[in-house]
Amino acid sequence: MNIKSGNTLPEEVLKAIRSVVGAGQISLHEPSFEGNEWKYLKECLDSSYVSSVGKFVDQFEKDLAEFTGAKHAISVVNGTAALHIALRLAGVKAGDEVLIPALTFVATANAVSYCNATPHFIDSEENTLGMNVNELQNYLSRSTSQVSGQCINRKSGRVIRALMPMHTFGHPNDLDGLLAISNDFNIALVEDAAESLGSYFKGKHTGTFGMLGTLSFNGNKTITTGGGGAILTNDSELAKKAKHLTTTAKTSHVWEFRHDQIGFNYRMPNLNAALGCAQLEQLPGKLVAKRNLFKKYEEAFAKIEGINLFAEAINCQSNYWLQTLILDKSQAHQRDLILEVTNKDGIMTRPAWELINSLPPYVSCPSMDLQFSNSFSKRLINIPSSPSI
Amino acid sequence: MNIKSGNTLPEEVLKAIRSVVGAGQISLHEPSFEGNEWKYLKECLDSSYVSSVGKFVDQFEKDLAEFTGAKHAISVVNGTAALHIALRLAGVKAGDEVLIPALTFVATANAVSYCNATPHFIDSEENTLGMNVNELQNYLSRSTSQVSGQCINRKSGRVIRALMPMHTFGHPNDLDGLLAISNDFNIALVEDAAESLGSYFKGKHTGTFGMLGTLSFNGNKTITTGGGGAILTNDSELAKKAKHLTTTAKTSHVWEFRHDQIGFNYRMPNLNAALGCAQLEQLPGKLVAKRNLFKKYEEAFAKIEGINLFAEAINCQSNYWLQTLILDKSQAHQRDLILEVTNKDGIMTRPAWELINSLPPYVSCPSMDLQFSNSFSKRLINIPSSPSI
Repeated sequence: MNIKSGNTLPEEVLKAIRSVVGAGQISLHEPSFEGNEWKYLKECLDSSYVSSVGKFVDQFEKDLAEFTGAKHAISVVNGTAALHIALRLAGVKAGDEVLIPALTFVATANAVSYCNATPHFIDSEENTLGMNVNELQNYLSRSTSQVSGQCINRKSGRVIRALMPMHTFGHPNDLDGLLAISNDFNIALVEDAAESLGSYFKGKHTGTFGMLGTLSFNGNKTITTGGGGAILTNDSELAKKAKHLTTTAKTSHVWEFRHDQIGFNYRMPNLNAALGCAQLEQLPGKLVAKRNLFKKYEEAFAKIEGINLFAEAINCQSNYWLQTLILDKSQAHQRDLILEVTNKDGIMTRPAWELINSLPPYVSCPSMDLQFSNSFSKRLINIPSSPSI
Repeated sequence: MNIKSGNTLPEEVLKAIRSVVGAGQISLHEPSFEGNEWKYLKECLDSSYVSSVGKFVDQFEKDLAEFTGAKHAISVVNGTAALHIALRLAGVKAGDEVLIPALTFVATANAVSYCNATPHFIDSEENTLGMNVNELQNYLSRSTSQVSGQCINRKSGRVIRALMPMHTFGHPNDLDGLLAISNDFNIALVEDAAESLGSYFKGKHTGTFGMLGTLSFNGNKTITTGGGGAILTNDSELAKKAKHLTTTAKTSHVWEFRHDQIGFNYRMPNLNAALGCAQLEQLPGKLVAKRNLFKKYEEAFAKIEGINLFAEAINCQSNYWLQTLILDKSQAHQRDLILEVTNKDGIMTRPAWELINSLPPYVSCPSMDLQFSNSFSKRLINIPSSPSI
């Protein structure tokens, strides 16, 4: 019961969301197509270039590089595929470990598994919802050794090859801190920027700090290609390798079929890239709309006790992909009731992901103490975040 | 020099192809969009369902099942992904071997590698361009043992878990023979029907004979979804597992994120399925057109000596995906000249794939004697095959 209003907290939350989103069924994040989508798709059909070759693939990659400031962008079939290839290019091999947050979507961990490597779970922190840099530094100092320029997990004996933070709900991690850890411990930094297209740390786009970064254009993301993703890198050699591995690794010849490596056929079709080109043109507008939505929610939730709207940290510009409420610890028990009340009323809300280390395929993976992730994962609620609201 | 005409063989071939395809630049296989493509894509945009959920995905899967006669069809992001999941569902594990033809596209072998298994190369035969059933039977009898109901390669000590024929250029393998081998040797039959949508063996659609089958809808295939593929099976349990593995293996809940396995996020987007629905409606017409094209080529090549147009075998109805010329052994040396003369003239032709066992990632894999594949791979030429010709 909220003393001031006489309403319960779930009722307060419902009322606050309704005051922003209006009446009716409201989804969590819905794409909108208000630009050249129509025109570009028609161009695809008319040209008959709908598949793995076509001008929209090249254009989309060029536009993505320009928007993010990465030297190279390589489009792929989805964000999971982008993660898989980025990890391989960062040198992740069978038997290695990769540091990832416990609080992330399962794809981050699955990509590690595709490399026959093992995820190693890292705690988060409350300013960014991302990796807890201080705790991670202490943890690595305590539990790893440097052997021949490689970071060895002393307990497992395995090489810790990569560090893959994820910019949660669009909020950038502390990239200064993560870069320092990457350098100090000889661990490649690969950014999972699936959720953070349009998010910046100290004015530089997420996904462009590490050796490689990845994006996702799934239907629920800020812009969509139906399904799609991209690999970002400033290293021209890695970009060439990314293109090679994400196709069938065919060597160049007019008619011969010679493949010099095991490729993954992760190419984004031209049809999907056409949608992407049109969507990317509208991205600046969508980012403004999402920031405005944050401000409206901020006002609506300002006076509700026991719950806070998550705001970008210092040095961070978030795309506010998913607007996020955080319950006070004392109110954590109300989470499921809030989810029930809102979803029953036609407003789609959802909790954070279950921590990956609790999922059956990953229960026995190594992990640092996950104190914050454990507490936090039970207190987060995502609320409707479409730019069209 | 062809004695009758006074022309060289390459000139004769060029003339024959031109007599069928007419003037201008002619590609090998071009998609055409003459039905509801436009309407369905617009429906996607208007509904905002472009991604992993939507009515076209369900419709496309239903239509595919109906067309092929398979009980279940599960759409995925491409044919390679379909192969990967089909092999996993057939029980292929790390350290296993999978029998595949040496004469196939590299994706067949790559899918085996994704399972951390080893391709084991099988020879082809000249009636079907597919697996040589008699030689395979002899080879397995000589070189394998049955241990606890599993087929063991005596030389490597590994389990031969699956048998994956590929229906080359649309021509069905001898499926009676392959089914018998599958039963006799306890090896799961998985059909790579990437090239054979609309091809039948004894009146039954390819890809529906084995435990699982796969299709491809790449831009060069008989119908296209931009990029896409499907898994076919008559086993409802396997179909359920295929759907689970090709998504993120999420267990069902309104808002919770619980994933009980490592999923692969291979979902076909609704946008691509929309294209597929429209294309599938036109498939019967395209098949008729491709058969007519075969007849025209048959006539054009009837009197040319030293080269033959490949025709469907007894009991087989081919979709004639790629029309195929086979040079007599005595004329094999002319292949590259024919490729040069035709490509230089603007007619896209190409040789068969290099045998997979000769590609760098696969040179050390086990193999039976590849006498026929070796001879054949140097004598095949694919010529323009679009249904719109």
